[in-house]
Amino acid sequence: MDPNAEQQYVITLSCPDTTGIVARIAGFLADAGGWIVEAGYHSDPTSGWFFTRQVVRADSLPYGADELRSRFAEVAADFGPETTWTVTDTHVPKRAVVLVSKEAHCLHDLLGRVSTGELPVRLSAVIGNHDGLAGIVEAHGVPFHHIAFPPPGNGRYEEAKEKAFEELRGLVKQHDPDAVVLARFMQILPPELCREWAGRAINIHHSFLPSFVGARPYHQAYARGVKLIGATCHYVTPDLDAGPIIEQDVIRVDHSDTAADMVRRGRDIERLVLARGLRWHLEDRVLVHGNKTVVFR
Amino acid sequence: MDPNAEQQYVITLSCPDTTGIVARIAGFLADAGGWIVEAGYHSDPTSGWFFTRQVVRADSLPYGADELRSRFAEVAADFGPETTWTVTDTHVPKRAVVLVSKEAHCLHDLLGRVSTGELPVRLSAVIGNHDGLAGIVEAHGVPFHHIAFPPPGNGRYEEAKEKAFEELRGLVKQHDPDAVVLARFMQILPPELCREWAGRAINIHHSFLPSFVGARPYHQAYARGVKLIGATCHYVTPDLDAGPIIEQDVIRVDHSDTAADMVRRGRDIERLVLARGLRWHLEDRVLVHGNKTVVFR
Amino acid sequence: MDPNAEQQYVITLSCPDTTGIVARIAGFLADAGGWIVEAGYHSDPTSGWFFTRQVVRADSLPYGADELRSRFAEVAADFGPETTWTVTDTHVPKRAVVLVSKEAHCLHDLLGRVSTGELPVRLSAVIGNHDGLAGIVEAHGVPFHHIAFPPPGNGRYEEAKEKAFEELRGLVKQHDPDAVVLARFMQILPPELCREWAGRAINIHHSFLPSFVGARPYHQAYARGVKLIGATCHYVTPDLDAGPIIEQDVIRVDHSDTAADMVRRGRDIERLVLARGLRWHLEDRVLVHGNKTVVFR
Amino acid sequence: MDPNAEQQYVITLSCPDTTGIVARIAGFLADAGGWIVEAGYHSDPTSGWFFTRQVVRADSLPYGADELRSRFAEVAADFGPETTWTVTDTHVPKRAVVLVSKEAHCLHDLLGRVSTGELPVRLSAVIGNHDGLAGIVEAHGVPFHHIAFPPPGNGRYEEAKEKAFEELRGLVKQHDPDAVVLARFMQILPPELCREWAGRAINIHHSFLPSFVGARPYHQAYARGVKLIGATCHYVTPDLDAGPIIEQDVIRVDHSDTAADMVRRGRDIERLVLARGLRWHLEDRVLVHGNKTVVFR
Repeated sequence: MDPNAEQQYVITLSCPDTTGIVARIAGFLADAGGWIVEAGYHSDPTSGWFFTRQVVRADSLPYGADELRSRFAEVAADFGPETTWTVTDTHVPKRAVVLVSKEAHCLHDLLGRVSTGELPVRLSAVIGNHDGLAGIVEAHGVPFHHIAFPPPGNGRYEEAKEKAFEELRGLVKQHDPDAVVLARFMQILPPELCREWAGRAINIHHSFLPSFVGARPYHQAYARGVKLIGATCHYVTPDLDAGPIIEQDVIRVDHSDTAADMVRRGRDIERLVLARGLRWHLEDRVLVHGNKTVVFR
Repeated sequence: MDPNAEQQYVITLSCPDTTGIVARIAGFLADAGGWIVEAGYHSDPTSGWFFTRQVVRADSLPYGADELRSRFAEVAADFGPETTWTVTDTHVPKRAVVLVSKEAHCLHDLLGRVSTGELPVRLSAVIGNHDGLAGIVEAHGVPFHHIAFPPPGNGRYEEAKEKAFEELRGLVKQHDPDAVVLARFMQILPPELCREWAGRAINIHHSFLPSFVGARPYHQAYARGVKLIGATCHYVTPDLDAGPIIEQDVIRVDHSDTAADMVRRGRDIERLVLARGLRWHLEDRVLVHGNKTVVFR
Repeated sequence: MDPNAEQQYVITLSCPDTTGIVARIAGFLADAGGWIVEAGYHSDPTSGWFFTRQVVRADSLPYGADELRSRFAEVAADFGPETTWTVTDTHVPKRAVVLVSKEAHCLHDLLGRVSTGELPVRLSAVIGNHDGLAGIVEAHGVPFHHIAFPPPGNGRYEEAKEKAFEELRGLVKQHDPDAVVLARFMQILPPELCREWAGRAINIHHSFLPSFVGARPYHQAYARGVKLIGATCHYVTPDLDAGPIIEQDVIRVDHSDTAADMVRRGRDIERLVLARGLRWHLEDRVLVHGNKTVVFR
Repeated sequence: MDPNAEQQYVITLSCPDTTGIVARIAGFLADAGGWIVEAGYHSDPTSGWFFTRQVVRADSLPYGADELRSRFAEVAADFGPETTWTVTDTHVPKRAVVLVSKEAHCLHDLLGRVSTGELPVRLSAVIGNHDGLAGIVEAHGVPFHHIAFPPPGNGRYEEAKEKAFEELRGLVKQHDPDAVVLARFMQILPPELCREWAGRAINIHHSFLPSFVGARPYHQAYARGVKLIGATCHYVTPDLDAGPIIEQDVIRVDHSDTAADMVRRGRDIERLVLARGLRWHLEDRVLVHGNKTVVFR
């Protein structure tokens, strides 16, 4: 994103494990003069899969991203039909759309991080189901869209909600983002949206999953008397709060913390965990396999 | 425990909250010249209960522990029939019995801590359902008792297990310990033992409860793909892994950790969490109310 | 700050330790019907001083903050001439002035926290020695003042700097804030300003003090090869980076983190540590004694 | 160490960075059918050096460790004369000698970890400058040697100390260990011993270096009023407490912790940090370059 930063190509690949994969990829890159500046490998003994992420200096290769992609496709083809891979160019900016409700702490945090250049992304739009945050979003130079979601119990609730989600779907489609960030969005996505945004929709859940799934997790935590509270950043799937986990963290609480204190203090962890998970996603550090992630930090 | 340490009386009290409790207790102590060296107060807005722990220099009072107890009983009586309180003398050593199975890491840790004087307790006995640890326990000058628990599936399993628990109950009763430490004991206590040892039986569970209750929690954690694993020290109640939590902690894991790695790495957290929870219990820092604890650290 | 929150009076007191202080204060409050909702005590064996912080429900007392102050003054007088104490009213909002330079991450974080009501303070003004942040500050409804500090090496550097600090001093004086927050201000305050703002000027230093005092601490940390980097929130005194520490925290780094990575990643800790330290200061949780703090969390 | 564990060869290499190193090594291994189960790479932009650690299944290669070494030597020779490399066989047990004084908590911890198979090492000997720990060491089946170091101030102090170090040097030489662990040894090694044991002598220092070098670091930390205390595991060099850092960690303290509390509580961090650092050293995860380490965890 930083135009002065060195241009790099980021290669990721997942395939069934076998001997010689590293040699094949490394040989392919070396033959082209490719200078590897960062490399992660993971051989998973349980699933029998292999995962890698490699970062190559663009100026060390005699060709560009498109040709790298077409040549690498041939390499990847050797590893079987289940293989998945990506090649991205760090000079092509990633784009994100952020979905919010009333709880604005994660949004404020993301806006600040983008503003200081900490997070390598352009915010294409913020979409809120309340309009109170339009001013501050637009002060950051980011378009704000308001979509009114109906309150539950409303007579035509299902119909109105469906319409709202359809509008949301259309708006997101226009921006075609690399990430759809549910920054405390508070609406449960319908399964078809989960599928359409698969691998791109990132949620922050305000508990240390799998503890305290669903609503009011801090109140659940308070009632159980736990000594740590946490937050979980995960990909959204049709199963509520059960998608592949990207990142989690916790902070210490004690008997003097009320449920309201936990709500307030937990925000610090939500902000951090979402920012870290989103960064790793944007930097192509997260490879999903089944319901688990490999994160090359 | 350390005979050179300053003698202190530790007072704890729990009662329905009202105005003037602190003044009543502080006034009582001040009238006797009592020098308070440590004081913790907690007023719980949800339950409407009040909790305190106070530490007084023994040499500042004109009488001993027994008279302090009888006089304090009058003070506590003012706070209603639900009030519970304790007065302990730091020069009367606390005693613990440790229950183990084959996993010895928590036991080794406790033996080391007692040996260096870090943990203020005398180990009255270690009771194991395997006999392999007798040598090292006895090298620390602590008696070891072996009680054979039958393997599940055995024909007379229930009967044999009942007999083993009866033997265990008798042995523990002989020592009348302040703490019964289940240091990875791996046997589920029968409800009547839970009740007999209520408020004294302390378990270390190898997960961040309430996640991963029951057997093989690290394997459950591995299957779910969590990014932190934890341990929980709690009082034992008839509800499996659901007693009041004293202490919890976590460590970071990632995709490169197998379930076996989690088992190994989790031991570091189990050791620490058990040692901290046990210390707080022994120092009368833990006040139980319903299914939650107030811990005055 | 929250007008719907329960009104409370916060009492703090530091004095030479002796028997009966708790009883005297608790008795005074109880006689007036005062309901203590939070209480912290610390008896320091090294210095021989006593510290307390107590929070009383305003509606439990028959009089207001002013009368509480004049009555408490009599109580405090009993503890000797060295005694210091405060009584504050949680319905009188605290005010802060924030000083910034170009590094805006802490400022963004504070603006977000104030905007969501997380931090109990009104921002009277932000004063920057660059003007690039005026827009976003004003979008939050906070006045921004630009004071140009001269670059070092400039011919009339000392004179110009003195003038700039004089302007800064005047501006801050107008607002008479409860906290002057150096949110990565990057200018070393002259000793007379340190004294004028004593106990109110709060700095965030981007290292785990006392390691890496002074300039470019992340580069110092990188050169030394440490495995954790940290941040320190402290009161400003004329001794550079040596004032009483309010809060510190660290995060893990490894060989793959360049100095630039540490600069970026350290911001997460700077934000959190400053926000926590500032909150505790604003809630009268921090009592300074000599070069150390007692923090009643 | 575990005879049932899969036999593996661990290769490490450090050399000036250039294109094609990964390809060369991976190609070499692939040509022999080598199955890489773990691989770490680090390309250091500041020093221009490259570091790798690779783990190969022994049964995937058609030859043994000795032939792997002689063949790999040819590969490594291609990367220039500054290249350093190792090939170790996980079925050849590593050996350690532990040096202790009176503070026994790290020793107890290491004995427990070795006893439960957590730490992949055989303890060849424990050498103490007091004899009180002989019994427990020998109960673990490990030989204990007592070497009397003279107390400072003694008339023939220098001479006696030199003699004691000479005896120590000879004893260690007999065992030719992979690690000499200074588990709170409390004696400053003479420069010639630092050199003789270079890259093998591992110390645990009870502070977060570079803060609080030298004696009584917890007392230094207490006097400064820090809010976290730490421990550092590092290779010993002639510069006191300044060798390459392997691992560090911290725990939170507050105003209620006396210096004695810090001494006690810090032990938890010393134990953990030493155990982690030693494990990584024994598993050939630590590559030293200049005064810094690359740790492939």
